[in-house]
This record gives sequence, C-alpha cells and structure tokens, in this order.
Amino acid sequence: MTKKILEKAAANGLINRRHLLGMGLTGAGVVATNSVMGADAALNFEIPGWSKQPGPGASAYGGRSSYAEQLQRTAGRPNPTYPGGGSSRSPLQHLQGIITPNSLHFERHHAGIPDIDPAQHKLVINGLVRQPLVFSYEDLLKYPMVSRIYFLECSGNSGALLRGVQGGNAQSLHGLVSCAEWTGIPLSTLLDEAGVLPDARWVAAVGADAASMGRSVPIEKALDDTMVALFQNGEPVMPGQGYPMRLFLPGWEGNASVKWLSQLKLTREAVHFRDETSKYTDVLSNRSSLQFTFPMGTKSLITSPSGQMSLPGQGLYKITGIAWSGTGSIRRVEVSADGGRSWADALIESNQFDKALTRFSIPWQWAGGDAILQSRATDSAGNVQPTRDAIIADRGTISFYHNHCIQSWAVTDSGEVSNVYV
Amino acid sequence: MTKKILEKAAANGLINRRHLLGMGLTGAGVVATNSVMGADAALNFEIPGWSKQPGPGASAYGGRSSYAEQLQRTAGRPNPTYPGGGSSRSPLQHLQGIITPNSLHFERHHAGIPDIDPAQHKLVINGLVRQPLVFSYEDLLKYPMVSRIYFLECSGNSGALLRGVQGGNAQSLHGLVSCAEWTGIPLSTLLDEAGVLPDARWVAAVGADAASMGRSVPIEKALDDTMVALFQNGEPVMPGQGYPMRLFLPGWEGNASVKWLSQLKLTREAVHFRDETSKYTDVLSNRSSLQFTFPMGTKSLITSPSGQMSLPGQGLYKITGIAWSGTGSIRRVEVSADGGRSWADALIESNQFDKALTRFSIPWQWAGGDAILQSRATDSAGNVQPTRDAIIADRGTISFYHNHCIQSWAVTDSGEVSNVYV
Repeated sequence: MTKKILEKAAANGLINRRHLLGMGLTGAGVVATNSVMGADAALNFEIPGWSKQPGPGASAYGGRSSYAEQLQRTAGRPNPTYPGGGSSRSPLQHLQGIITPNSLHFERHHAGIPDIDPAQHKLVINGLVRQPLVFSYEDLLKYPMVSRIYFLECSGNSGALLRGVQGGNAQSLHGLVSCAEWTGIPLSTLLDEAGVLPDARWVAAVGADAASMGRSVPIEKALDDTMVALFQNGEPVMPGQGYPMRLFLPGWEGNASVKWLSQLKLTREAVHFRDETSKYTDVLSNRSSLQFTFPMGTKSLITSPSGQMSLPGQGLYKITGIAWSGTGSIRRVEVSADGGRSWADALIESNQFDKALTRFSIPWQWAGGDAILQSRATDSAGNVQPTRDAIIADRGTISFYHNHCIQSWAVTDSGEVSNVYV
Repeated sequence: MTKKILEKAAANGLINRRHLLGMGLTGAGVVATNSVMGADAALNFEIPGWSKQPGPGASAYGGRSSYAEQLQRTAGRPNPTYPGGGSSRSPLQHLQGIITPNSLHFERHHAGIPDIDPAQHKLVINGLVRQPLVFSYEDLLKYPMVSRIYFLECSGNSGALLRGVQGGNAQSLHGLVSCAEWTGIPLSTLLDEAGVLPDARWVAAVGADAASMGRSVPIEKALDDTMVALFQNGEPVMPGQGYPMRLFLPGWEGNASVKWLSQLKLTREAVHFRDETSKYTDVLSNRSSLQFTFPMGTKSLITSPSGQMSLPGQGLYKITGIAWSGTGSIRRVEVSADGGRSWADALIESNQFDKALTRFSIPWQWAGGDAILQSRATDSAGNVQPTRDAIIADRGTISFYHNHCIQSWAVTDSGEVSNVYV
C-alpha cells in the first residue's frame, strides 16, 4: 500500500478516486484479501459440480438464482381495519445500478390491488373539455408513446426520520422509492384531442380501485411531461403499479400518479379529494398546512454500508448509494465519513437521467474507528440536499411527508452500522 | 376526418406525424371507433366488481396480471443429444419501450444453466499478466462499477431469413435480442490491476458451465467498454444470463459475452475455441470464412403489426418496432408500407442510447388493400440497414450468422400479416 493510494479525498478514510482509478491500483486493498497465485496454481481449483454436468435448459419465464432470493420487498402485516391498505418497500441495500426490477418496485395501496380485465376497463376524459372521450385499452395502444426512465417515490418515504425512529435499515427507512422505464401516452395528446376549455386549471384523476383514489393535478403539469403509462420496464404495468394503466407524473410524489386510472376530469378548482386533505398535506409547526407540494426533494442515500449491516474488519470498502431529484438530474454527490465535517466527490457510476435514480460510489479505507457516513446530492437546478435539522427548523415534525434530509449511518469500532441523528 | 390528417408521409397510408401530433387530432381515427359521450353519460358505466371490494395487499415479490401471462419466451423442446443446449426467444411483439424484463430476456445455452453458489465461485485472470489474480464474488462487489443500458443479440438471430424460412413471427424469427441495464466492473480496471504484458493481444474468456464455453476477445475491446457484469436491471444477473457474473461486450455478438465467467487468460494469439470455429464463424459463398466478426449490424424490426397477427379491419393502426446497432446509437428509422418504394421517417419514442434498443413508431391508415411493411435503421456511424438481397449478394446463404436485413411483413386485403421475401 503506497502513500499515493491512500491520498485522501476527505477525512476518516475517503479515498480520492481520481488517484485510484486508471492506475492499475484500484483494488490494491482488495487484492490484499485475495489469494494471489501463480498462473498454474490459479487454475488448480477443484472443478465444481456445476461445471461437470449440464444444467436445465432454457425456459418460458425465468426465475432468480436461489442464492438471490433474499431480495424481497418488506410488506407490513394486513390490517383488518384497513383492508388492502399499506405498502411494501424495495430492498435498496441489495440493488445496484438504477433500474428496479418490476417484482421489487415499492407499492403503496389504499384498498389493495384490483384484478382488472383490460378488455372491460375504460378511461374517461370529461369536465371542461370540448368533447368528452372514453378510451378502451385497445384504443390507447394505438397512440404514439414515450419511454423514459423515471424514479417514483412515495411522499411518506423516509418520514420516520422526522419522528426520530430508532434503528432501521435502508429498506425499512427509505424503501418507498424505485426506478423504472415507464412507457405511455403523453397526457397532452389525449387532452388535445378532448379539447381543453380555457377555464380548466386542474385535472382530477381517479383510480378504479375500491378506494377510488383521487388526486388533483395542475393543468400545467398535465400538459408537460405527464403520461398515461401502460408499460413498465417493457412489459405491461404490474397489477400493484396500476395495471392496465396509471397516471405518471415524473418527479412528483408517487400518490399523485394515480394507479388503475379510470377518469380524468378537467375542473376550474382542485377537488380536494379525501386523499389530498386527510393525507399528503404537510402540516407545519404553526399548524398551517402546505397542500399540493408535489415535487420530490433533492435527495441521496448510502445503501451500503447501511443500517443493520456489520463490517467484518478493517480494510477497503465500497460506499455506494442512489441520488435523485424531482426537479432535474443529479449533478453531484458528495460523501462524508466524519458526520459532515469534510466531504469528497463521489464517482457517478450510472447515466444521470432527468428525474431518475443516479448511482454513486466512493472507496473507503476503514481504519477501525468510529465513523459517520453521509451523502449529499446536488441537482441540475442547484438544489442541495438539506440536513435533518434544516428541514425540522423549516417545517417542524408534525408532518412526515417530503423528508429528503441527509441520512447518517454510524459505524462503531466493532463494525456495526446503524441509523443515527447528528 | 380532414384532408390535413391524412397528409401522407409515404405511399399506402403512412401518415406524416409532424402534421398529426400536437394538433389535437392525433387519435381522430381512433376516436371514430370510440363511443363519444356527454359528460354524464361517460360516467354512467356499471361499476366493475374490482372497484367495489378491496383487493389483496402489498407483497414481498410481485407477479404479473393474469391478463399479461401470454408474455412468455418460446423455448425449443429439450434435445437428448444436446443436453441443456438451445435457446428461448423474447416476445418482442408484446413488449414496448426498450427494456426487457429479466424473466423475458432471451437465452442461449450450450450445456444448460449451472446452479452456481457465488461463495464458491472464482474468477481467475492469468496468462500474459504481471500478476495473476483470483477474485471471489465478494471481492468484486468492492470495485467501482458502471451501469449502462445495452442490447444483447445472438449472432444467430434472424438467421432463418437467410435460409428462406416460411412463416414465423417477430418472436420466432427475431426474438434472440433483448435489452437491459447491465452493471459491472470495467474489465480494464481488473486488467490494469493484473498488469497486461506487452505481448498480450487477446483475452480468452471461459465460462463455468459444463460446456466450458470459451471465446477470444481482442485486447482493444477488453480495455474499452467491456465489463464483468454482476447485475442486470438492478438485481443480480439471472441464472440464465450467467449468475453470478458474465462478461459483457457492448454491441458485440451475444455468444462472446461469456456467461458464468470463471477465467480470463491473456494470450498472444486467439485460442480458436471450439465455440468460435464450429460455430459463430461466417462461411461465405466461396467457402472462405470470416472469423471474429463481432459487432452486430445496424438493424430494425417492426414488432407490430408483425407476422401471424391479424388486422381486424380498415382504419388507423400504430406501426411500432425496435432498432439497434453494434457500432453506435440509432439516428433514424424509416418505414415503408409499399415494400420499399417509398419511405417515411418514424417517430423515435425512447431515448437513443449507444448500443441499446431504440423504440420507433408511425401511424398508418390502412385502406384495406395489400401492403408490405418494412423498417430501415441508420446509426450514428452512418451505417444503413441493408436489404436481404444485398446481404445474400455480399455473403451468400451458407452462414446464417449476423443477418441484419430489412424484414418484410405482408398484409393481405383480409388483414393477415406474414413474413415475406421481396
């Protein structure tokens, strides 16, 4: 291990990746834990059984390796007083890249998942339009579509941190965010066809689930990048994501992207649906409320090492995580290993798409002492992810929505990682 | 239906999307098949059962709608003389966007799928290196990675067209292409660490399957965008894609992206593995052979309407499909409805990523007569997808590899769609 490799990017072991990459020394710390053998010895393994006998052939629908089955969403227990209500959370600590496989995309339901026959489903556009329209699923498949990669996040994600919850891990605290390729019809196309009347300022969207989930969307967003999404990562949207169709509002709180979409009514005023008054409204410390706070904040999260993990010993680790913003693309992610006193720029591993997850990493030489790991995102609009203290000073702790504060993971000298407040 | 809507882009019903979009008239042909109701009547549907009772709640691992289960790969029957050999093909005619869900990604195996325990798997780098190295799965997880969206195509894809096969559909003829987000370690990082000696010109890659699949990769590609991929669409690579790790060579024939990767040996000469002499070599008409023809050609395919579909009647249809190139991004896709006599530019619906699928579409007003639908891709290097005649004139019909010719789908006046040669 030379001095050059350890040239630090910030205190407490963060290594400057510019000095680490492209010099044939990247894994020097890693190699120390490998067996380094001569060429002959390297090939002198016992041949494993799976190399000696043919395995099963190709299949119609592929499944995961049995060794990867720990990748599961966590779903709360059914609540008899709230049938079908609740959520499941993506296993962020096990995922890499930016796409979330459809089976692991987070869910939030208010009356469970309706089993919709697409041949019987209708989408109505009415209200302040020249010509009310009704569309079948087959009708909609004929329209020009757009495919883009977007994150989706529940506005209640990470809310437990504002309540000061003890413990937890990346999945339980932050697992209500996922990312997929969404393919659908620009809503502007359908609204143009219906003919928006001048007085129309809002679009009231209602789902076909038993909760009749309803949300009011400003006409400007409806005519911008909003889509009626029919496909998710190439296949029809999953039942838990709104099959056969959902509204999709890039960058905005997930609940407003109404699933099982059945009606879009153009109105003069917002409807103030039950779902946007009893929920999804930010009550401030002075008991006034912020309503229709749609865009999700500039945010990042270290997914490894993260809460409830255990570091086996001193040495080189890879810190990795995700960053996203409802108001643009991610421009920069910084990482601190000393609770925010010093910061180093992380490597961006993925593309930096607009309103999508972005993957970052940085090498970390853990010398065995205490550490507090944090990440801080900056987006293309210049927004910088705030501290928890700043969010609480601004809004208080009554509402738990729209929390995008910096997460702190403490590492003890025995290597235990946990959620802390600093 | 006004004259303006029908302003043609090319003969036989192709409509100029520039006149169709953004004018509130896009679906005019579609609307003719809708019930257009007054606002009250539009809401006067019978409430479906799924809107009256809560459905099942969130779950640990989501499944598809029972109405979407026709999306299956087609896998040939097991062949007792070739255990585990064969392939499965993606249902291209049912997919949209550009991502292929992992369970539907095509497969091609030479000895079936080994069930590898990642804790027991090793990756060896040896041969002409300063320092032979061996890596465990855990070691590799510590490296900086890169995540990119790339297509993968078997070089045998579409080969049946050169043999003049009769019938078939998008899946059976062309289903050996898929697209995913691949996340892995740049191979250059690992090779830098091993220290490539000056004489090394090739990297011999070998898999841990019972076929010991082996391929020779030129050092230039190995040091360019090649990766050792560990994740596919965010989760560990599927068993049929090489779990726990595969080589991934963006834009190159799929077979060279060796699955279940266990060894990379740097050599002076190509190894001429069984798999690159008995297969994956292009025998020309004069019986000479082209070997190591790695990059996949500039190609496109109309996935709907496509072979074995049936158009229910005259009216407006959406022609859609995919385009890709092993030498860059897709710049343009043209569509013809008259067998290549006239062409119109298609709308690009997706991002146009380097070496990834790109989704296109164009509206088509079918007047009920005969039609021959074709698409033609142009990539960022200026390569234009050739006709079948041009490929046969160039290479003959002995080899069926690397066929990227224009596909022709005939539509009869009764609406039957089938594979034809024109």
